[in-house]
Formats: sequence, structure tokens, C-alpha cells
Amino acid sequence: MAAQKNNSNRISNLFGIKYPIIQGGMVWCAGWELASAVSNAGGLGIIGAGSMYPDVLKDQIIKCHAATSNPFAVNVPLLYPSVEEHMEMIVSLKVPIVFTSAGSPKTWTSHLKSHGIKVVHVVSSSAFAIKSELAGVDAVVAEGFEAGGHNGREETTTMCLIPAVSQACQIPVIAAGGLHDGKSILAAMVLGAEGAQLGSRFVASEESSAHRAFKDAVLSAQEGSTTFTLKALTPVRMLHNALFKEIVQAQQSGASPEQLQEIMGRGKAKKGMFEGDIENGELEIGQIASLLKSVRPAGEIVSEIVNDYREIGGAKLGQRFEF
Amino acid sequence: MAAQKNNSNRISNLFGIKYPIIQGGMVWCAGWELASAVSNAGGLGIIGAGSMYPDVLKDQIIKCHAATSNPFAVNVPLLYPSVEEHMEMIVSLKVPIVFTSAGSPKTWTSHLKSHGIKVVHVVSSSAFAIKSELAGVDAVVAEGFEAGGHNGREETTTMCLIPAVSQACQIPVIAAGGLHDGKSILAAMVLGAEGAQLGSRFVASEESSAHRAFKDAVLSAQEGSTTFTLKALTPVRMLHNALFKEIVQAQQSGASPEQLQEIMGRGKAKKGMFEGDIENGELEIGQIASLLKSVRPAGEIVSEIVNDYREIGGAKLGQRFEF
Repeated sequence: MAAQKNNSNRISNLFGIKYPIIQGGMVWCAGWELASAVSNAGGLGIIGAGSMYPDVLKDQIIKCHAATSNPFAVNVPLLYPSVEEHMEMIVSLKVPIVFTSAGSPKTWTSHLKSHGIKVVHVVSSSAFAIKSELAGVDAVVAEGFEAGGHNGREETTTMCLIPAVSQACQIPVIAAGGLHDGKSILAAMVLGAEGAQLGSRFVASEESSAHRAFKDAVLSAQEGSTTFTLKALTPVRMLHNALFKEIVQAQQSGASPEQLQEIMGRGKAKKGMFEGDIENGELEIGQIASLLKSVRPAGEIVSEIVNDYREIGGAKLGQRFEF
Repeated sequence: MAAQKNNSNRISNLFGIKYPIIQGGMVWCAGWELASAVSNAGGLGIIGAGSMYPDVLKDQIIKCHAATSNPFAVNVPLLYPSVEEHMEMIVSLKVPIVFTSAGSPKTWTSHLKSHGIKVVHVVSSSAFAIKSELAGVDAVVAEGFEAGGHNGREETTTMCLIPAVSQACQIPVIAAGGLHDGKSILAAMVLGAEGAQLGSRFVASEESSAHRAFKDAVLSAQEGSTTFTLKALTPVRMLHNALFKEIVQAQQSGASPEQLQEIMGRGKAKKGMFEGDIENGELEIGQIASLLKSVRPAGEIVSEIVNDYREIGGAKLGQRFEF
């Protein structure tokens, strides 16, 4: 069990964690097993509420509290239908940290903070980072184009986004998109971030609730195996498969947003990522999948990242870089 | 005049330069004034032959030799019509280094190397980096999705591409795409690069032959002001303007590659970047334009980058990082 360490990294201090390494709250992959494993290893685990009914989320939070005494968070996409029930659950079950995404940071930040909850909003541009700061969030996740799942239409990459958001905001910035090891986290911190959120790397962990077939598909991914698509609907980066080909063909023949919505249908993300229908389901994963070579316990992933970061000498760059 | 420095950075040693900072050979922007200014400041200046007839290139090389005693290079896009005459000129005028792009590295590498010329090929994937290494090039430029101008269809970003190419090759890797200052160069070197090529930053230099109106447009760019487009033709990242809107509309209404070619016509790059027709010309620039705030002498840009790199403590990470 990792204890809080006093240093000048604002993300570690804000959350009361040992390392500013955050596991993304990916839909269908991030349940209490994964979140508690990451938090127990000294990072910040996140339960992804985006794929959960309120009673499922309740169960997940209770189990996560039981499995770790360290801080953990819940990620809530604000455009989802049960957001009010999710927020009630989070407050009543004393979740210490909430990551919000896909919606306005104004809607829930004050309410959550009035209950002593730390709030982080996920953004893909400096403009939204500034709005989030004005709404009172404690930190932002700045997520680059290379990240898996839903992302911004401006397509700004991590290399360009992190310096921009870090310059635009006073609050600390957590980088996301293309990060998977100690070197990429140090690169993001050199660019101005104070923490790193990793999604794809933790999809390929033992505790992730992704279906084994999805994990295998992630490990088989090559460069160019993912595409940021569906820009006319809700832009998303997904792994190439039969569903992806159908989308590409429909787009090429001028399909309307309604027709694209019909192809996507309902439950395609669950079908692919949770039930393992690798060809007909939606497989959300980042570009960095091409560098992932094994499924490992989440705690080992955190330790390996910390060792790698220390080996390259991250801490030599100053107090902000120490962990 | 910067002298060669002995250190273990393979890019500095390969080229015989002081800092592994390379100015991209951007069409219409990179003539002898810019190349010699960068080389005189201790980096590697490159003349961009892609926008030059053979007699213009000849004149540019002669002037560059006269303006600097330090090494400089010529960038030759291999699909351009006058490539044979360009190569003859390069050999006869004793250009020490050639960067090739947009074509097979097999075609010219042996010929150039038999004349003692160092050869670097520009790639956007590990697969092409491996092919380049097998063709005998001395180094590769790995250019991410965020870069301006023509780039790869796989859309791999600098954050994901540099670790992949560095792992795939034995030869040294020069990073490109999203790099503009000491921090971003250090980030790229942490990811595995041994040098950095900057295009957009040097477009906005006093010695760049870009039209003043283009330079001003670059300084006015915001996040999201560029898009990687024309994927059905020759994919390119360009600044938004009337020409870009016309392309978007044509693509949305299902234009064929031939129709898109007609919109692009001939000479649109010259019109925009060299003649300053900001609305109807093609303006090639990278995402990082949104962080550029002034047009400066190229030598000052190099010095500022070196100071910034040293200030953040790059050299503390080991010999490979020293400059």
C-alpha cells in the first residue's frame, strides 16, 4: 500500500497518491478490479461509469472501497443518460475524486466540490481547458488525437496540446494520448504536464474487464491499425475490423449521420470490448496499441513505468519531475 | 561559426554539426538564406529543392556554399520531375548531405553515398524506416501526423511514431512534427530520437522565403486552424482558408480524385506560401503554428532553443542528450 509522498508534483499532492500515474476510466474495461489494483500500486485507479447502470456503479464503488484504502476516482461522461443518479451515488458513497468528460464542466463541478470531491475535466483543446479552469475544476486531462475512444474534432496531438494547455492554465495538467511507459510520461512532463493518464496500456492488463479476445486484438495491433473516424457523428478512434470497414464504406458513399448511427446501432462497444465480438463490435483503443506486447498485472505495469522513468533520469530534471 | 563538437549524439557526429537541430527543407520557404543562417548557428540548414527548377537549385547551392563553411543539406522529394538533374547538381556542387522524401529510398541512396554524400530519408512509419535502413541511409526523419505539408496516411503522431521507429531501427532517428522549442526537442529525445527537425518554426523566421503574408497567417493560427486533408489525393496538412473550404465542400459532395486535383490546380503552393495569396493559395504548416508568436532571425531561434533545452536540464539525462 503506497503512502502519500510529499513532493512538489501538484497532481500527486492533489490526489494524495504516490505517483502521478492515472489509469483512464475506459468504458467496459475499467471496473473496481483494475481501479483498485492501480490505486494499491500507488497510482490513481478510475472506475469508468460510462458503461455502467447506476446499480452496477454502486456495486463497483463499494467493491473498490473494500479493495483499497488509497484514493480512487470515477469517470463520468456528462452526456450519458443516468448522470444524475451516478453523481448521487458518487457523493453518497464518498468517492474522493471525479473525472468528468464529454459535456460542460460547469454543470457538476460546484456540486461535487461542495461535497469535498476533487474534480478533473477531460479536454482536447486549450479553449475547453480555460473554460474548465473557470468552472473551478482542480485539474484537467488534456487528451491528444492519438488517444483511443472519443476525442476532439480539432485533432490536436499530445505533442502540440500539452504545451498549449499548460501555458493556457494555472491548474495542473494531466497528459493523455500516446503514453504507455516511463519515457513517454517523462516526455509529457517535459512538455508541461504534471501527471499522465494511460488508457490503452491498462486495457491490456490482467485486471481490465476487457474481453480476452479484445486484449489479444490490442496486442496484435500494428501502426496504422486504428483510425479516428465518425467525424460526422461522434468522433472516435477505433481498431480496424469488419464494423470499421462498414463505416468507411458508408462514409465513402455519402451516408447521413442517421445512417451512420444505424450502423453503429446500440451496444456495439459492449459487444466488442466486453463480449469479445472482435469483428462486429466497436473496439476503442489508442495508436500506442502497436507498441503493447503483453497483458500484465496492473500493479506490475505501474512499477515498471516508475522504474523506467527513474532509469532514464526523470527526477534529475527538478522537483516537479520527482516520483 | 560553430565548430564540430565531440559528443555521443550520433546525429551531431554524422553531420559534423554542433547541435542536432535541423531546419526542414520546406517548399517555397527554405532557400540559401535560411539554410546558411541555421548552419552558421550550429544547426543543420536545408535547401528545399521541391519548389526549385534545376537552375534555381544550382544558384541556391552556390550561394549557400558562399554563405557558410558549415555543413548544409538539400531536401529532394523523389517523385518530382527534375529529380535526376537535381541529383547531378548536388553531386557536382559537392553538397555534403541529402534528405530524400516522398519516394523509395532504394532509388538514389547508393549513388549518393558512392559520392561520399550522407543520406537521410523521411518516413512516417516503422515499416518505411526499416526499408530505408536496408537501403543504406545514414539516418531517418520520422515525421508525425502533426507536421505541416505532406505526410503518411496512417496518421501516426510524433508521440507514438518516435518510440516505434527508434525501436525498429539501428540507425539514428531525427524526430519531426510538433517540435518548436527546447522542451519539445527534449521530449522527442526522451522518446528515442537523437535529433529534431523543425519546419513551421523556421517558416516563421526572418530568413525564410515565405511571403510576409504567409508568415503573418502562421502567427495568427489557433489550435484547430490546420487540417490533414486530401487523403484521396496526396494527403497534406494545410492552414484553413478559402481554398481549404473549397476542398472540404468538394469532398463532402463526393468529388473524385480528378476533381480534387482540378481544384488544387498547379502552382497553388507557390501562390499561397511564396506569393502571399492567403485565401486562394495552399498554405502548408504544422499544428504547432498555434504556439508561434513572432518572426525571428533563424540564428536567434537556434540559440533560444539551445538555451531552453539547457535550462530544463536536457544534458542531465546522459551523454546522448548533451548539446
